[in-house]
Amino acid sequence: MSHLRQNFITKDWVIFATERAKRPHEFARSVADIPPVLPMYKSTCPFCKGNENPSEAEYLRIEDEHGWRVRIIPNKYPALSITGDRIRHSEGIHRSITGVGYHEVLIEHPDHNATIALMEIKDIIHILNAYRQRYNIIYLDNRIESIIIFKNHGESAGTSLEHPHSQITATPVVPSQIRQRLIEATNYFDDMGECIFCETLRDELNAKERIILETEHFVAFIPYAALSPFHMWVFPRRHSSCFGEINDLEIADLAYTLKTVLSKLFYGLNNPAYNYTIRSMTTDARHSHYFHWYLAIVPRVSQAAGFELGSGMYINTAMPEDSAKFLREIS
Amino acid sequence: MSHLRQNFITKDWVIFATERAKRPHEFARSVADIPPVLPMYKSTCPFCKGNENPSEAEYLRIEDEHGWRVRIIPNKYPALSITGDRIRHSEGIHRSITGVGYHEVLIEHPDHNATIALMEIKDIIHILNAYRQRYNIIYLDNRIESIIIFKNHGESAGTSLEHPHSQITATPVVPSQIRQRLIEATNYFDDMGECIFCETLRDELNAKERIILETEHFVAFIPYAALSPFHMWVFPRRHSSCFGEINDLEIADLAYTLKTVLSKLFYGLNNPAYNYTIRSMTTDARHSHYFHWYLAIVPRVSQAAGFELGSGMYINTAMPEDSAKFLREIS
Repeated sequence: MSHLRQNFITKDWVIFATERAKRPHEFARSVADIPPVLPMYKSTCPFCKGNENPSEAEYLRIEDEHGWRVRIIPNKYPALSITGDRIRHSEGIHRSITGVGYHEVLIEHPDHNATIALMEIKDIIHILNAYRQRYNIIYLDNRIESIIIFKNHGESAGTSLEHPHSQITATPVVPSQIRQRLIEATNYFDDMGECIFCETLRDELNAKERIILETEHFVAFIPYAALSPFHMWVFPRRHSSCFGEINDLEIADLAYTLKTVLSKLFYGLNNPAYNYTIRSMTTDARHSHYFHWYLAIVPRVSQAAGFELGSGMYINTAMPEDSAKFLREIS
Repeated sequence: MSHLRQNFITKDWVIFATERAKRPHEFARSVADIPPVLPMYKSTCPFCKGNENPSEAEYLRIEDEHGWRVRIIPNKYPALSITGDRIRHSEGIHRSITGVGYHEVLIEHPDHNATIALMEIKDIIHILNAYRQRYNIIYLDNRIESIIIFKNHGESAGTSLEHPHSQITATPVVPSQIRQRLIEATNYFDDMGECIFCETLRDELNAKERIILETEHFVAFIPYAALSPFHMWVFPRRHSSCFGEINDLEIADLAYTLKTVLSKLFYGLNNPAYNYTIRSMTTDARHSHYFHWYLAIVPRVSQAAGFELGSGMYINTAMPEDSAKFLREIS
């Protein structure tokens, strides 16, 4: 018989459907579906080194002796605009707000065929440093309530651009989903006197069976009520609500952690499409006792359909303990 | 400049990205992607007339002089099980519950190549009657908190089965997303003394510009803050919180409404994949003043990626007013 588990942080219920459960390796891409090997350079790619558009703004550049390693530029079709005032309109049941905010592209590497799973650690450190720098600059903008850094890897994760890149977005409102989680976390803190994320981390370290990787500063694990197969959380051990507060030692350690878990996916599941996202506190509080920033990774190995749409609940056909064991054992 | 709109019912903010906006017809499937014409019968299809498995349970059958028109059978790989007790476990931050509930398949038509957009009205009435009958039977089961009826049409909407079918699910918990909406609706009722859904309907009828179709008993429209292009709501005009209370006149009218809007999608967007779902009150209250059942249709013409995952917000590249006009004008 299947069972349901509740994610204590999001309050989401997930159905673990053992009747239709698959073994971890069955979620791997079939050989026919493995994306083709990419060239190191493509003359038509606007992100490749050598194809920079000199008339385009550049918000950040990290260089070494060979030239740039990471660049942040505007999104060509931005969903939000950097100029203008944050103006709300409210009329009856209609509420709207001007689309001020940030929507930027971070080019992760000069090479077209690079991918975090296979990059050198120092290159991943550049990416994370760029995230932090840009996060802390956008943070100062009073029009911004929430900063969301994310990456889409592969076509089924929503990107048509092959060149490795991330996106940095910042919104003029607190998204209702994020507000809801803050309310839950605040309630837990008021009830129990501690951070629900710190408690979750202690619990996972104690249980051990869902851990993928432990390092000095981070723990990667599959949550007890993972929404989908190989849905992963990477928590910093140190309580900190704001990603912008990550220090240099933690950045180096996160680069190693990220490379390790993504290469486990790369080799174990044949380079699946995935999204990752950094969840950080809203900009109204930098040092919150009840929120804890983290990184979530969602490989696209299953598909949400009408049930998920109609209920907000998920059906997961893999047990978190099995998926974690599978990834733990890939070296 | 883009702008954001808030859905007053779900409290979701949606970014309307005018910089990357497309014209309505640009969301149509390309000719190369139109699904192939299906045969009327397939010997390997377990849902085709003539291929019934006599050893399998059948929960409902609607017949006419030519034989069955609609059948409800168990899902071959049920996510939830009809037998067993609803038992909760709670230990520290872990909460789980046994997977009791319902997971059934409704075969919508004897023919393999039927589709609601092109069916006769009397066949759609059979489907809706079967929904109602089964809903009202499951409703009596004390272990059930929420009944979710949905349909996945097309591969990108999450189904690999071609034969037209819907699913009926019932869960032993109230999904947190549904609970959250009930809280919002209750607050609105307490503040304003009326149903937020009735108010939304009045507002849409007044504004006119997002209406797709008005009938005697139903109104189909694109919400002011639609999550995605052609995201549609079909509201009953009569306040009723429970789908099980739909009457025969309303069923006939809903059959016409559903056929009309789905055939507008079929012809206007070249038979896109879509999901629809019936949102009804939880089973603890049948006659709620503050909730109003409705049907939501989400064509799969855009893809959620890292931003949606990381924020719960959506980016919509089509204006609801333009999409509604486009669909209104398809006859």
